[in-house]
Amino acid sequence: MPKPLHILNGPNLNLLGQREPEIYGKASLADVEALCRKACTEFGYELVFKQSNIEGELVDMIQEAGREACALLINPAAYTHTSVALHDALKTLDIASLEIHISQPAKREAFRHISYVAQAVDGTISGFGINSYLLGIKAAINILQKS
Amino acid sequence: MPKPLHILNGPNLNLLGQREPEIYGKASLADVEALCRKACTEFGYELVFKQSNIEGELVDMIQEAGREACALLINPAAYTHTSVALHDALKTLDIASLEIHISQPAKREAFRHISYVAQAVDGTISGFGINSYLLGIKAAINILQKS
Amino acid sequence: MPKPLHILNGPNLNLLGQREPEIYGKASLADVEALCRKACTEFGYELVFKQSNIEGELVDMIQEAGREACALLINPAAYTHTSVALHDALKTLDIASLEIHISQPAKREAFRHISYVAQAVDGTISGFGINSYLLGIKAAINILQKS
Amino acid sequence: MPKPLHILNGPNLNLLGQREPEIYGKASLADVEALCRKACTEFGYELVFKQSNIEGELVDMIQEAGREACALLINPAAYTHTSVALHDALKTLDIASLEIHISQPAKREAFRHISYVAQAVDGTISGFGINSYLLGIKAAINILQKS
Amino acid sequence: MPKPLHILNGPNLNLLGQREPEIYGKASLADVEALCRKACTEFGYELVFKQSNIEGELVDMIQEAGREACALLINPAAYTHTSVALHDALKTLDIASLEIHISQPAKREAFRHISYVAQAVDGTISGFGINSYLLGIKAAINILQKS
Amino acid sequence: MPKPLHILNGPNLNLLGQREPEIYGKASLADVEALCRKACTEFGYELVFKQSNIEGELVDMIQEAGREACALLINPAAYTHTSVALHDALKTLDIASLEIHISQPAKREAFRHISYVAQAVDGTISGFGINSYLLGIKAAINILQKS
Amino acid sequence: MPKPLHILNGPNLNLLGQREPEIYGKASLADVEALCRKACTEFGYELVFKQSNIEGELVDMIQEAGREACALLINPAAYTHTSVALHDALKTLDIASLEIHISQPAKREAFRHISYVAQAVDGTISGFGINSYLLGIKAAINILQKS
Amino acid sequence: MPKPLHILNGPNLNLLGQREPEIYGKASLADVEALCRKACTEFGYELVFKQSNIEGELVDMIQEAGREACALLINPAAYTHTSVALHDALKTLDIASLEIHISQPAKREAFRHISYVAQAVDGTISGFGINSYLLGIKAAINILQKS
Amino acid sequence: MPKPLHILNGPNLNLLGQREPEIYGKASLADVEALCRKACTEFGYELVFKQSNIEGELVDMIQEAGREACALLINPAAYTHTSVALHDALKTLDIASLEIHISQPAKREAFRHISYVAQAVDGTISGFGINSYLLGIKAAINILQKS
Amino acid sequence: MPKPLHILNGPNLNLLGQREPEIYGKASLADVEALCRKACTEFGYELVFKQSNIEGELVDMIQEAGREACALLINPAAYTHTSVALHDALKTLDIASLEIHISQPAKREAFRHISYVAQAVDGTISGFGINSYLLGIKAAINILQKS
Amino acid sequence: MPKPLHILNGPNLNLLGQREPEIYGKASLADVEALCRKACTEFGYELVFKQSNIEGELVDMIQEAGREACALLINPAAYTHTSVALHDALKTLDIASLEIHISQPAKREAFRHISYVAQAVDGTISGFGINSYLLGIKAAINILQKS
Amino acid sequence: MPKPLHILNGPNLNLLGQREPEIYGKASLADVEALCRKACTEFGYELVFKQSNIEGELVDMIQEAGREACALLINPAAYTHTSVALHDALKTLDIASLEIHISQPAKREAFRHISYVAQAVDGTISGFGINSYLLGIKAAINILQKS
Repeated sequence: MPKPLHILNGPNLNLLGQREPEIYGKASLADVEALCRKACTEFGYELVFKQSNIEGELVDMIQEAGREACALLINPAAYTHTSVALHDALKTLDIASLEIHISQPAKREAFRHISYVAQAVDGTISGFGINSYLLGIKAAINILQKS
Repeated sequence: MPKPLHILNGPNLNLLGQREPEIYGKASLADVEALCRKACTEFGYELVFKQSNIEGELVDMIQEAGREACALLINPAAYTHTSVALHDALKTLDIASLEIHISQPAKREAFRHISYVAQAVDGTISGFGINSYLLGIKAAINILQKS
Repeated sequence: MPKPLHILNGPNLNLLGQREPEIYGKASLADVEALCRKACTEFGYELVFKQSNIEGELVDMIQEAGREACALLINPAAYTHTSVALHDALKTLDIASLEIHISQPAKREAFRHISYVAQAVDGTISGFGINSYLLGIKAAINILQKS
Repeated sequence: MPKPLHILNGPNLNLLGQREPEIYGKASLADVEALCRKACTEFGYELVFKQSNIEGELVDMIQEAGREACALLINPAAYTHTSVALHDALKTLDIASLEIHISQPAKREAFRHISYVAQAVDGTISGFGINSYLLGIKAAINILQKS
Repeated sequence: MPKPLHILNGPNLNLLGQREPEIYGKASLADVEALCRKACTEFGYELVFKQSNIEGELVDMIQEAGREACALLINPAAYTHTSVALHDALKTLDIASLEIHISQPAKREAFRHISYVAQAVDGTISGFGINSYLLGIKAAINILQKS
Repeated sequence: MPKPLHILNGPNLNLLGQREPEIYGKASLADVEALCRKACTEFGYELVFKQSNIEGELVDMIQEAGREACALLINPAAYTHTSVALHDALKTLDIASLEIHISQPAKREAFRHISYVAQAVDGTISGFGINSYLLGIKAAINILQKS
Repeated sequence: MPKPLHILNGPNLNLLGQREPEIYGKASLADVEALCRKACTEFGYELVFKQSNIEGELVDMIQEAGREACALLINPAAYTHTSVALHDALKTLDIASLEIHISQPAKREAFRHISYVAQAVDGTISGFGINSYLLGIKAAINILQKS
Repeated sequence: MPKPLHILNGPNLNLLGQREPEIYGKASLADVEALCRKACTEFGYELVFKQSNIEGELVDMIQEAGREACALLINPAAYTHTSVALHDALKTLDIASLEIHISQPAKREAFRHISYVAQAVDGTISGFGINSYLLGIKAAINILQKS
Repeated sequence: MPKPLHILNGPNLNLLGQREPEIYGKASLADVEALCRKACTEFGYELVFKQSNIEGELVDMIQEAGREACALLINPAAYTHTSVALHDALKTLDIASLEIHISQPAKREAFRHISYVAQAVDGTISGFGINSYLLGIKAAINILQKS
Repeated sequence: MPKPLHILNGPNLNLLGQREPEIYGKASLADVEALCRKACTEFGYELVFKQSNIEGELVDMIQEAGREACALLINPAAYTHTSVALHDALKTLDIASLEIHISQPAKREAFRHISYVAQAVDGTISGFGINSYLLGIKAAINILQKS
Repeated sequence: MPKPLHILNGPNLNLLGQREPEIYGKASLADVEALCRKACTEFGYELVFKQSNIEGELVDMIQEAGREACALLINPAAYTHTSVALHDALKTLDIASLEIHISQPAKREAFRHISYVAQAVDGTISGFGINSYLLGIKAAINILQKS
Repeated sequence: MPKPLHILNGPNLNLLGQREPEIYGKASLADVEALCRKACTEFGYELVFKQSNIEGELVDMIQEAGREACALLINPAAYTHTSVALHDALKTLDIASLEIHISQPAKREAFRHISYVAQAVDGTISGFGINSYLLGIKAAINILQKS
């Protein structure tokens, strides 16, 4: 049986659905998890789905994914723009890694235009609301099937 | 019958498969078009697929998409980083618009880290090779089905 | 009989009246042309009025104005901020040249605060809606009458 | 009877005609005032025409224009590039406000390429010598007649 | 009897209540003065309350406060961001000096993110509407009572 | 009974009184807490007072305040200048939020002149030693009493 | 028989000899072509000599040179400083490519100090008037003879 | 009899001797004036010696010097670094003009490293305490005697 | 008996030996610890050796070292370049503190050229592989023996 | 008989052929000198060929060329990017001066993209290996023959 | 007998009188030396007057002045803007040190607006032609007589 | 017998012990040399120890080390921050090279935060006073013993 897919969520995403819904939509993180699990199941993969507000815990989770996952999706939220630690952790991976964003950061404040994470992952999907997660799963599966 | 999906390709993409294959892969643009057409057909949409090396012709094509397409995908290639004209044309659209990239620009030269296009479209998909096109089609269909 | 006045319009201005009307107003480019022609006729001048989305065609048109026009007005739109080619073409002129803008770029995104065109023309008029064109015609006539 | 038009002139413009005539021309500020008064009279408006070298007095004059003028023209001269106070005063106005320049600042030193005033007025006219004033009056009248 | 407290107000604050009330609120500067006077009286201090649109007059007033006041509050408004002269005047003081702002400049345009005044005063209070004045008075009294 | 006021303290503030006393004073964080509790009690509010050295725990605490507090004061210390995560957490709040600093960061190293937190809170108080806390409590109470 | 040498000329070079002769000299582009053809003939090479004002047509011409030329010289004129599209097209070439300039851009405006083209070609020759072309031909022949 | 020499003093120099004496020394401005008057008398020149805290009044005084002085010395103090208006006024002069500073601004805060005034005067003398004035007088006399 | 030496390791160093071995070498963190312990023993010191991926835990550990260690070595890894919190924690120490790096950050990406930590410690050792640790221990012992 | 041509070589060029041969090739500086001498002889010119690692000696040599040479070629190597002294020395010349580079600096580190020398010479040739010298000699001869 | 005054001259000043005389005047360095010697003699001081094109020799000369001179004047010419080594050497001095310039660097290219030397000397005199030297001698004597 | 170790010292280090002893300590360069010689002898290596104030002589010495040394230590002092020539010379070496600093440049002026040398050597040791030399010798020996 294949290793599971890991999806990590960064700071404040536990508030999804309550926080600035005009930017992030109304679905909760539990809703997103359910959708992702359904999608993974259809592709024949298990899902590990986590969230943390702590940069260093996300580093731990990325390292864990390096040992236990077939591929990694990460929505790094605010740490996208400030974390060299996430960048370094992602650089240690041998598996496929993807960055996803619900909103389109390029349309927001200037400090959201730089991504340390984008420089360390295979690809980026942003701006599609929670569908960014499902597209990310599809993208990861494609990479797994090719290799 | 629904309006077709339009996919536009910017400068030097006519050389796809020959140009720096370690970055862009070995598939030709005709191969990409065939894959995209197959995907669109499965979703019940026609496809209009174009390429130009001329910034202003891409502006024309974006305007045409505004009149005739249900949604627009654009791989703006080099114009991503220098064209306010594409930005302005995309801002005139009422339909969904997406930016796609075969490579991950954030991993390349500093002048590829800025995107005027990302500031004017709904979402961005980058780094998945020619699969970025198929993910983009899927993303566009999702938006169409939601509205 | 005097040489005609030339008015050139840059990218996306063919959509005038449809595109972001809260910024650019509701008049179409044909409406603007009609108003300008009427104003020129009153001053005893013919009018040549053109639009292109292609930077290099605008360079051609500026060069043509250098041979055939008594004065040149240009609304360079998006190329205002990115085109050294327009700058160089305008620098070749012996006739009066003016930059006009419907909106006030200084009030918009930071990348619209720099104008390569302003550094190569005699004067600039911006922010008066389509009346910027009529003020520009008046300004050009004044220069012609003085010389 | 309509409220008068106000025209304000910033630092060193009292020396007009004497100061760097190759840039600013030979007409004195009194000459400019006479020309402006004649133009206003033709349009059926009175003119209030003032000059100050003091930034804060120009703030006073802008506030006064807000109470007593139908429209405001300002040639902020050196304060164009350094005065947030003028910017803020202009932002308080409900009447039309215009920025005028005799020279074309974009062709001069880099520190003249930024305008705090342009970000707070309706429109800008620059580069036409003292004719910038007459074009500004015409632009202001147009706005008054439209509203 | 103790020396009075001085409160100085910079450019355009004489328009308080009329100017951009969504940012600055509806109270007039006279209202603010009355509230401040009441608060000072309760603490047993007289109040000197002034406003000027002229940078150099504010320099004079700061110097005067240095001779006659027990403490100084200044709302430097637009000069916050451009005045080294106010900075230098504040640096000459031996008494407590405070910067107050009605709005939160850090939430506004980038040119309001730098404060020459903050680098020369003891403390800053911003963002509380006219209550910033009352908090400032309280802060000043605290400093006076400690020393 | 009203919800309590929450006061959060960022990294190294647990060392207050020992660390660089010429900048931060001699009172310990327990002293500050006692003073704040006394002040809250006088206003009829309970106080929740916390400290953490971990950015993500401060995010948790801000979210908790969003659910359980009537208002939030935060002294973000070093995270003031580097944390988009705190910025985002503060943006999710419906209650009043304030930034407080013991020292005046504008007088210190250049990297302390930028505040991500100031861009996300209602107001800022800095430079008054531990009295910044008491002024902040007063400011928060004022906001609560107005609404 | 060897493949021909291609020489491409960018925007406004069709005006050579008329445009700013104090910078660019008095020879026309036809004169330059004749000189280049004579030099190529002496070396035993045919010459293809083209000019376009359109960035995208220059991209086409570079791609064509990639298929049909033994070596490429390009005087990119204004596009030197703004075109990532030319940079990308030049990067696709397997043949020798050279950048030539009639003037010395480093002695002119700051926006002419950056060259996207220089980062993508084998070598650069600038500042020798039309002799830059002949030196470029010689340089290209040298490369061809070495390989 | 020759025209007098004018010496102008900018903001806060009226406090000389009291303000930051470790930087500016203990002599008052009246002391400086007496020393300067004595020096001028020895050279056979009258002295006009003025001070203002108001930027625009300094503009007036510079213009007056243009009409009535044989040469101008200015210690622009804080306006050195922020005033384009002083720069423009100095540019209008036909007489010799000099910038003097008591302290050495290059050794102080970064915002004192730029001088708009230095770009508009004949020469600069800084760092010699009040002796900068006497050296400036000597420098001005030298220029007068040469011409 | 003397207090122990503390050595702290930042994010991702728990993966040492597995992560990018061409940069960081093949020794594991346990190997490094063993070598360091041996070296300390030879010098007569105990060793406390810790690692955390969490910025705030490293702050805690630095504070603990301030109470319990004779000297501190820190390899801050990714937090080197982003953490003002570590900077502030190190500034609170009375004991010797050193920054060590296995790689030479100056030879890597531009965002690794700035170190907040270097500005707060006594000295820096970088680029010697795991030998940087042993040199750091030697450097710390030297400081201890001198004082 | 004509004055000789001077060719100057900057720091580390004495190691040519040994130093980073993948960038600079395998020919030694003596080889280059021999080739240059042969080329000069063919054109009927003597050659003076020098190298120094010392910036000031290169200044001396440029001054000497001003007295004794018919034209100057300089490969300033590392001083290209840092030496205002070379720039100033080259500005004193009445003879033709050229900058040559073996490599293409625009393709290397960012600090090699600025050239103080290019701003002071007539022309630049870079990127052709040691053939840059021979092209430079040819360019110099052309200038001499024209004048 | 007092120690002599030392005057040092940087690169290219040996060409004084020949080099760009419209900027630097027609007097030779020997003329300047003679004038300075005469002035020193009148004040009762010997003069040591040197020039070097080599940065490190100027460092030597500054160190020598530290041992043997009563005061130091330096015209660092091009090294003004690039030499931290001169800055450091000047920082070692216990004697008075002055920077002199013949021209006014603030009126020239942007790279001449920064002075590492001005940050390390007591005062600066610029823009007075060779009279800058005599004013510098006078300034030095004043300092010597005060101490 | 092994090749000797070379230690090079940059500008002003000949003054060690006299120059700013609060930064650099009281030991003279001869003291440092003696300590280093003793350490090398203990490790069985000869020492070559040199100093120069001249950038180009340091280039010579680095090249000489490349031929004659087993390893190189350099304290580049002021040239650390300005010398591309040293960078290039160090890049030519096949032997181990180290950068050492007595002080911690990261704690000093901003212009000391950039090191061209750090980008070209194997490792850096800074901030340990003259012990930086001994640690550097130890580091070099370690590298020699490993290879």
